[in-house]
Amino acid sequence: MEAAAANLQYEPNRTASALRTRRTGLIGLVVNTLRTATFHTIAETLQCWAAQHDYQLLVCTTGGDPAREASFLQTVRQHHFDGVVIAGSGANTDLVNALVQAGHAVVTMNREVPGSSAPSVMSAYETAARMATEHLLDLGHTRIAAIEGPPEVTSGRLHHAGFLAAMTAAGLPVLDELVWRGPFTPDFGRSAAGELVGLPEPPTALLVTNHEASFGALPVIGDGELRVPDQLSVICTEDEPFYAWWSPPVTTVDNRAALLATGAAELLLAQLTGGPDQPLQRAEVVAPVLVERGTTAPPP
Amino acid sequence: MEAAAANLQYEPNRTASALRTRRTGLIGLVVNTLRTATFHTIAETLQCWAAQHDYQLLVCTTGGDPAREASFLQTVRQHHFDGVVIAGSGANTDLVNALVQAGHAVVTMNREVPGSSAPSVMSAYETAARMATEHLLDLGHTRIAAIEGPPEVTSGRLHHAGFLAAMTAAGLPVLDELVWRGPFTPDFGRSAAGELVGLPEPPTALLVTNHEASFGALPVIGDGELRVPDQLSVICTEDEPFYAWWSPPVTTVDNRAALLATGAAELLLAQLTGGPDQPLQRAEVVAPVLVERGTTAPPP
Repeated sequence: MEAAAANLQYEPNRTASALRTRRTGLIGLVVNTLRTATFHTIAETLQCWAAQHDYQLLVCTTGGDPAREASFLQTVRQHHFDGVVIAGSGANTDLVNALVQAGHAVVTMNREVPGSSAPSVMSAYETAARMATEHLLDLGHTRIAAIEGPPEVTSGRLHHAGFLAAMTAAGLPVLDELVWRGPFTPDFGRSAAGELVGLPEPPTALLVTNHEASFGALPVIGDGELRVPDQLSVICTEDEPFYAWWSPPVTTVDNRAALLATGAAELLLAQLTGGPDQPLQRAEVVAPVLVERGTTAPPP
Repeated sequence: MEAAAANLQYEPNRTASALRTRRTGLIGLVVNTLRTATFHTIAETLQCWAAQHDYQLLVCTTGGDPAREASFLQTVRQHHFDGVVIAGSGANTDLVNALVQAGHAVVTMNREVPGSSAPSVMSAYETAARMATEHLLDLGHTRIAAIEGPPEVTSGRLHHAGFLAAMTAAGLPVLDELVWRGPFTPDFGRSAAGELVGLPEPPTALLVTNHEASFGALPVIGDGELRVPDQLSVICTEDEPFYAWWSPPVTTVDNRAALLATGAAELLLAQLTGGPDQPLQRAEVVAPVLVERGTTAPPP
């Protein structure tokens, strides 16, 4: 590996040679944020994979801004990156397809890019929310609240569908006052949890599928008058180290971010090594798993 | 900004033009991990700064491996990045100096690169540990334990010196059985905390300057028989959102990662715009602040 050749006197001119061979050894990764465990895990897993295969992973975080993402995708093209993994805004379909067309290895993940011709790896969001709701139903809960992401985002839409499906299958109504759908922020979780625990008749169980909101919701619940899990059960989706460190540790439906990343790496490698007649269109879905910890129990 | 020009038909050949002008608009950032809040904050802060100044930040995470870091520094050189911020292993002095020599803007931060000629921004690790210890001393503690990083790493060495200085100034002994120095892992924190709370005469206060170890130590303490803060006070260094969400929220000496990153950005910008006669050698130190939350109180 070149890594060991720490002597700059020997310097193959990679920029010039890239113009000839289109092999720079660079892989890009777009993420919306570096602040959540799913994205850390994706970045760290792909970085290890890249190092093992003599590629270098360059990570771009965009705050979910399609324009910053577009700018990075231009860099991927102009600097002849060999490939790119996009766990991004869901926008920029034209740029994604142009990269595929130009022969770059491209994988989208985590959020749909509608109309994209690149293979994708997605979380089974609907399944995750359904499994989480079924876990609460199995414990005997009927008055179940939910704090969810916005309806216009893939995960927000699908998580809601999974919650709805499980409640409907159990013959239970989904009550407006118990369902909060909003932005991916701790602030939203804080206010939603505050409203829910302050209800004259609070829920006996809470499903949080809005990951960032859980960071605001959990402290409100932990400091509140409802004891967890005796009076209020809580379950989240998308595992996170912090959940295991909370008191009591938080029951979760794990989206298995490392497996998502491994799937993306495999789809990338197939393109990097497979040549132009490789069949491209593939959509993988990673199944979630229930991780029972201490925040769920039968209703009081 | 080019970001908006999402039309790949117009494609200035950046690779070729870089060979002429040495202006690619790319800034590199090396971090050891993307799993801790200090590194997220550094990456996100620099990313926002870069977007504002029409640069693109490409992040490389190395697991602290000097060879992977070296490989990335080669990429910085070979792809004519305009600059690089290194919050890395502390190794690779020769590569760092070669980049400075070759006219790249270079800033090191967080960990010393001995012999480096690049300007640096550092945390005041010694001050942070001294302030944390003094907070415990002011509350009346004398039997104070510490979970620290390894002595061969800048932060491990300096945090220990700060702890020692405060204890010595107070005329108190530092007892071998109460000081644990080891790797930056939750596992180390878990076992160190287990030993400390299991002592026949446990400490009344604990300073955790090994950030990763705190993630293992806090759950052990939270689940243990010593009530926090009535029987055991706990203070950490290097703030982290999780600390505010713990029950009770964790008192911390905040290293102010965003300020560290802003300092690095300013030193970078000075080089990017200042031309070759810019005085390079500068070492900035960011002062920490005490954030009193719920885990520290007078001894029982």
